[in-house]
Amino acid sequence: MVHRPNPTDRRDPRTGVLLLQCPDAPGIVAAVAGFIADHGGNIVDAQQHTDRSSNQFFQRLVIELDNLDVAAEDLATAFGPVADDLNMSVEFHESDRPLRVAILTSRQEHCLVDLLHRYRAGELPMEPVLVASNHPDAAELTSWFEVPFHHLPIGDAGRSIQEAQLEEHLVAADTDLVVLARYMQVLSPEFCERWAGRCINIHHSFLPAFAGSDPYRQAHARGVKVIGATAHYVTAELDAGPIIAQGVGRVSHRDTVEDFVRRGRELEVAVLASAVAAHLEHRVIIAGDRTIVFS
Amino acid sequence: MVHRPNPTDRRDPRTGVLLLQCPDAPGIVAAVAGFIADHGGNIVDAQQHTDRSSNQFFQRLVIELDNLDVAAEDLATAFGPVADDLNMSVEFHESDRPLRVAILTSRQEHCLVDLLHRYRAGELPMEPVLVASNHPDAAELTSWFEVPFHHLPIGDAGRSIQEAQLEEHLVAADTDLVVLARYMQVLSPEFCERWAGRCINIHHSFLPAFAGSDPYRQAHARGVKVIGATAHYVTAELDAGPIIAQGVGRVSHRDTVEDFVRRGRELEVAVLASAVAAHLEHRVIIAGDRTIVFS
Amino acid sequence: MVHRPNPTDRRDPRTGVLLLQCPDAPGIVAAVAGFIADHGGNIVDAQQHTDRSSNQFFQRLVIELDNLDVAAEDLATAFGPVADDLNMSVEFHESDRPLRVAILTSRQEHCLVDLLHRYRAGELPMEPVLVASNHPDAAELTSWFEVPFHHLPIGDAGRSIQEAQLEEHLVAADTDLVVLARYMQVLSPEFCERWAGRCINIHHSFLPAFAGSDPYRQAHARGVKVIGATAHYVTAELDAGPIIAQGVGRVSHRDTVEDFVRRGRELEVAVLASAVAAHLEHRVIIAGDRTIVFS
Amino acid sequence: MVHRPNPTDRRDPRTGVLLLQCPDAPGIVAAVAGFIADHGGNIVDAQQHTDRSSNQFFQRLVIELDNLDVAAEDLATAFGPVADDLNMSVEFHESDRPLRVAILTSRQEHCLVDLLHRYRAGELPMEPVLVASNHPDAAELTSWFEVPFHHLPIGDAGRSIQEAQLEEHLVAADTDLVVLARYMQVLSPEFCERWAGRCINIHHSFLPAFAGSDPYRQAHARGVKVIGATAHYVTAELDAGPIIAQGVGRVSHRDTVEDFVRRGRELEVAVLASAVAAHLEHRVIIAGDRTIVFS
Repeated sequence: MVHRPNPTDRRDPRTGVLLLQCPDAPGIVAAVAGFIADHGGNIVDAQQHTDRSSNQFFQRLVIELDNLDVAAEDLATAFGPVADDLNMSVEFHESDRPLRVAILTSRQEHCLVDLLHRYRAGELPMEPVLVASNHPDAAELTSWFEVPFHHLPIGDAGRSIQEAQLEEHLVAADTDLVVLARYMQVLSPEFCERWAGRCINIHHSFLPAFAGSDPYRQAHARGVKVIGATAHYVTAELDAGPIIAQGVGRVSHRDTVEDFVRRGRELEVAVLASAVAAHLEHRVIIAGDRTIVFS
Repeated sequence: MVHRPNPTDRRDPRTGVLLLQCPDAPGIVAAVAGFIADHGGNIVDAQQHTDRSSNQFFQRLVIELDNLDVAAEDLATAFGPVADDLNMSVEFHESDRPLRVAILTSRQEHCLVDLLHRYRAGELPMEPVLVASNHPDAAELTSWFEVPFHHLPIGDAGRSIQEAQLEEHLVAADTDLVVLARYMQVLSPEFCERWAGRCINIHHSFLPAFAGSDPYRQAHARGVKVIGATAHYVTAELDAGPIIAQGVGRVSHRDTVEDFVRRGRELEVAVLASAVAAHLEHRVIIAGDRTIVFS
Repeated sequence: MVHRPNPTDRRDPRTGVLLLQCPDAPGIVAAVAGFIADHGGNIVDAQQHTDRSSNQFFQRLVIELDNLDVAAEDLATAFGPVADDLNMSVEFHESDRPLRVAILTSRQEHCLVDLLHRYRAGELPMEPVLVASNHPDAAELTSWFEVPFHHLPIGDAGRSIQEAQLEEHLVAADTDLVVLARYMQVLSPEFCERWAGRCINIHHSFLPAFAGSDPYRQAHARGVKVIGATAHYVTAELDAGPIIAQGVGRVSHRDTVEDFVRRGRELEVAVLASAVAAHLEHRVIIAGDRTIVFS
Repeated sequence: MVHRPNPTDRRDPRTGVLLLQCPDAPGIVAAVAGFIADHGGNIVDAQQHTDRSSNQFFQRLVIELDNLDVAAEDLATAFGPVADDLNMSVEFHESDRPLRVAILTSRQEHCLVDLLHRYRAGELPMEPVLVASNHPDAAELTSWFEVPFHHLPIGDAGRSIQEAQLEEHLVAADTDLVVLARYMQVLSPEFCERWAGRCINIHHSFLPAFAGSDPYRQAHARGVKVIGATAHYVTAELDAGPIIAQGVGRVSHRDTVEDFVRRGRELEVAVLASAVAAHLEHRVIIAGDRTIVFS
């Protein structure tokens, strides 16, 4: 029996996260903080950012819920009038409700292994609801973690049938977030549209350098001295979605393409874990083609 | 004639920085934000931190001053009652009043050169009021930047006389910040006390490893694979003050002590510049033996 | 059934590694290269280093064995006269004979997991012969990798009895290398002596800062901005053996001791894997208190 | 009077550097080492690399010249028969003959300042023979270092006339290496051809991402989390020459384009200095579109 962590027992008082976005204007911070204080909430952490070029304001607030005089599920509604005045879009997440995560993979297991071990060690506040792959290889590993595994080969019926099966599983499992952990299939524009902002991919290069396939071979041919990995939200345009995290590592003339691949694995694992953690902890706001990632 | 930048023309609207520190309690953010909104101020940036172990709250606010209904110099007074209620210590700095900086050095010029060139390039919002050294070497360089230079040898009269002369110069120049840019003299506990929180040193090791003298030799003898540099506020206890910034770089068995020294210079330059910039931009709050450095 | 990689199928022609160390003198490179050429060997890779302070010469040679006119097992003997002339110490390893590795651990599994998964992915040319722990926790994980597990609690009989049991297992398994993968027991000076140069530990700090126990707590109290991990050969003096690899990562005032621990795990995993790989690939020569690590 | 270092007094015995390149074959190392030993030379350092894909062998040897029985200037000739047998291309450099370096710049001075200060501090074994710019700004700074300055505006006569003037100066000064220290003019394919392997540029991005103009603006628009700088040999194809060194630094959503520019300056300075040092110390061999950079 695998020990399954309770991701909610990491922080003591019950808290919620507010993610806010609106045009910048004087008094926003006071209006929001005043609302929360008026309802008995305590702001445990607040981070904000104003993008001067678009004149857009972004804020992440962590609020203690225990003394709040409105129920957590009613907070967004109660906040409505304040938000409307400021033309503000609002997201609210209760910290003790971990996101439900589906992990897609193909043959290479390193990212999958890492995410599941971090989950098991209590590092990632998520509920892994399924692992799906177009290859059967990861079945045994996944079952050891007691997570359902679905083998979804492309087969004769073709890619669109397989994608439909996949999406059925995602919906049935009430999936909040899809993680492409070296899933080597291109997803349809429609799928990308439906899961916009809820689907994270790890690309094995320092995007936008070496987009597309076989980036390590491209990088080796170009003679780079630094390789990278990029985690980004998936959009219909391949490898072009908003970047969440990037990592880099030094290479030299001594390294072959195979060495690039091996060293790249460590980057991919670290960068994907970092991006997934940021999303799970509600620290990311998407702003057009870019992301705000609060620390 | 050297071009002297106007450090105030970097950001358009006049702003001020509030640095706040108090015991944590519900409603702090709302109280502060409410005060500023009530007086017509706009919060351009806000960062906060709560230290759970000491239950202390820290905040840095950048405020647009132009529509404020109190004069900038009266802001702290007007804020007094709010601060008293919260048992809050308050610092306020107008962004268009650059700090007056004295740089102390000895024989090695790399940190001095870097600070003066960054100043000249408009990167550091400071007014260099003097350079002092126990050696004459830097006189020519300093004069090229049109900054007054004082040669203060230790001499027969001894260290305490020299330190008194130095402090006279610092006071006469109305110095806000003293930067020890590889100044190889130990300052008296009394001096350190008087300039507490206003004197930054660069130590050429990854403190607390290799405190004291000749750290690169110590590091080489120990066979480390990474060297470092540490910028910290000076306290009476040598090399033990609150750390502001640290940098590290890889070394190998191929590197001699001299190589450590040479590569260390780059670290020292970068780390000192980063720490000085943080102080000049009022991004640092000292909390006991540690620092909060807002980004 | 777990897939067990054949660590020898990574490089095509059969090769061997010569590690040489002797007082520096003219003609060493020619003497060694001449010997190998005379016997039909081809030098695939050569790296050398001369330490000027000790006037000591170090060399690592990779030699193709297939056309050699002496058997691999007789090479060291054949080389004897050359080595004697130069007062040279010689190690020879055939690349297709992976080292037999024992991994010791306690409660924390992250380093163990990483080493076993890298082995499984074919990244580490080793034969894992046993895992031993003073706690039973890792039994299930280890068995999944089909590696023998020994639970060796300290118990009433005490530390020295347990260490004797441990060493019996190591000897019985014909162990070449012992890896302390967060093994939280201090080993006796006698054990350290017997396994000198064949026992690698991961310390969770940037040694020599924060030697001893609870380094992350020490680092947090000191307010450092960078944390580290250090892999070193074990010697009788605790945390003072020759350093093989070090890694570092940035932290800030936002990070608690628990965050240091969590982020430190990634450093420990990466640094230990890097040091173990260097040892397994015969890229390390110990030179007094320091190491030569060829790339 | 500026102190002018003697770049030759850094290493005690007179040495020379051999850079060799040939098709891989058994016995190369022995043939070369034998030749040197036969002539009384001592190999102080040797590094080699075999590129498996092209089956090409590369070696850098540092040789003590004092006991050599042929004059340094005759070494290449004496070595001729060995080189011919192996189809080997050979470069030989005496360490006490520093390369003659011309630095080209435009308005931004940070790279120029850094190179000249490193030269003055004795870190770069070079003879700066001239600084040229299409703007007059750097004249004063350059003259302080007592290096000739040429203001070569593009003017009405146009780019090709200016380039001809520039090249006249380079040739008159017997220039070994041209460093483009943020020189913002495109050089003609013919110029690039003539100075192939002797002209180093610093590009302010992580090539091949963001080739062309205004890379920091491109990088900001793409929302990257890491920025970079690349030093490369100049070829007729813009920003596509063999990469010598790359550096990277983290950025976040808080950073504006101007912050990218400011932080990028530090990367540019460090990366260019590293690449120039590698070239001056004869540690680089160009292999097609890539470089071998020995450490």
